[in-house]
Amino acid sequence: MRNIKMTIEYDGKRYQGWQRLGDSDKTIQGKIENILKQMTEETIEIIGSGRTDAGAHARGQVANFKTESTLGLAEMVEFLNRYLPRDIVVKELKEVAERFHARYNSNGKKYSYYVRTATIPSAFDYHYSYHYPQTLDLEKMNQACQKLIGTHDFLGFSSLKKTKKSSTRTIKELSVQREGDNLHFTFVGDGFLYNMVRIIMGTLLEIGDGTRKLSSIDEVFEKKIRQDAGITVPAQGLFLDEVYYN
Amino acid sequence: MRNIKMTIEYDGKRYQGWQRLGDSDKTIQGKIENILKQMTEETIEIIGSGRTDAGAHARGQVANFKTESTLGLAEMVEFLNRYLPRDIVVKELKEVAERFHARYNSNGKKYSYYVRTATIPSAFDYHYSYHYPQTLDLEKMNQACQKLIGTHDFLGFSSLKKTKKSSTRTIKELSVQREGDNLHFTFVGDGFLYNMVRIIMGTLLEIGDGTRKLSSIDEVFEKKIRQDAGITVPAQGLFLDEVYYN
Repeated sequence: MRNIKMTIEYDGKRYQGWQRLGDSDKTIQGKIENILKQMTEETIEIIGSGRTDAGAHARGQVANFKTESTLGLAEMVEFLNRYLPRDIVVKELKEVAERFHARYNSNGKKYSYYVRTATIPSAFDYHYSYHYPQTLDLEKMNQACQKLIGTHDFLGFSSLKKTKKSSTRTIKELSVQREGDNLHFTFVGDGFLYNMVRIIMGTLLEIGDGTRKLSSIDEVFEKKIRQDAGITVPAQGLFLDEVYYN
Repeated sequence: MRNIKMTIEYDGKRYQGWQRLGDSDKTIQGKIENILKQMTEETIEIIGSGRTDAGAHARGQVANFKTESTLGLAEMVEFLNRYLPRDIVVKELKEVAERFHARYNSNGKKYSYYVRTATIPSAFDYHYSYHYPQTLDLEKMNQACQKLIGTHDFLGFSSLKKTKKSSTRTIKELSVQREGDNLHFTFVGDGFLYNMVRIIMGTLLEIGDGTRKLSSIDEVFEKKIRQDAGITVPAQGLFLDEVYYN
């Protein structure tokens, strides 16, 4: 049995997210599994590094699948990209050890989130960035980023219910760069809880526009109450850039 | 009667180009005129600086229109952007002299054309760049650009039939920049004939991939036969960036 690691890029705007929902054809996972079935005549389940939300994008999602097909990797890439919709692209396939598991073996991820602050919207970016036409205090947002970096219990910055599972994660990098009227946020960490990037983003924007105090971050860390954090910003500005493995 | 100059950004992928075709709702001009009618209760014809092709985009198309409306410009911008589809954005409105004419008074334009040379397509760019997965000789393409810059009869590089009208134009700037796997071509000139940017682009790409000689440019200038030039590349990679006025 071969185990194949795939790196995938997708524009999520037309999809209900990564994870297959029953027989739904509107998920990235479902689309890829359908084409793999055509290609191999096997029923293949692909294991993603994690879900992405409806409308969110990926430049480097990783998944793996097992197959008995003897096709070459280059042939597979060509077949997949020929029959997949144009907004899902297999960037690379790689033969990996049988024990490789795209979710369990991942030890980190990198995300981008884009915000447009200009009053006038863009004709091009509305599926790829969050239009937040406010004057934002970058200095304050940078201070907030410094507070969030490090190892913390991020339960209050997630949509998870409290369970016995650990909600402690380490954010290694969290930074914001201005590119004209657009802000590009970069998140690197060992793992992210459900909605964690989007809730941290909402919190950062509220700190940036002055409607929230910097110290509220400490309170969310202490009390772990999701309602004390900022809004969940829309998925459209979110890109999964890279998944890390040892 | 007020004369108002508008600067417009649009994603052309869903449209049959700039110019209204009868009552068609599928053109940029038609969409804007419909909303202007709602706003002013007048039947308004807007005059664009020039047409853009079906599928081509604009970051800075310019048009003007006359109206007796007494609405403020900021109110008009807000109304238009609220009711226009999200892929058409009015960036600016400006009160201009009654004699201002967006087409006749323009003395130059700037276009961009994007080419993706990587073998693997992009999940994001297929409506915004031309996928041409070839190894291109940038040095040769730069030499070709130098030949094209200046004042020439560009009839052979256009889809026009020969008429009495002058087909002499001046290209002031024509350059190519590599950004990873993508090429960004910039065209600045006093005016461009029908399909001129797209046919020059096809010619440049054929020179870049070695299937066409540099000297063929001189031949097209001399003989003015469109079939001697390169293919007309797809409109999807074309952006009208700016329209110049004195």
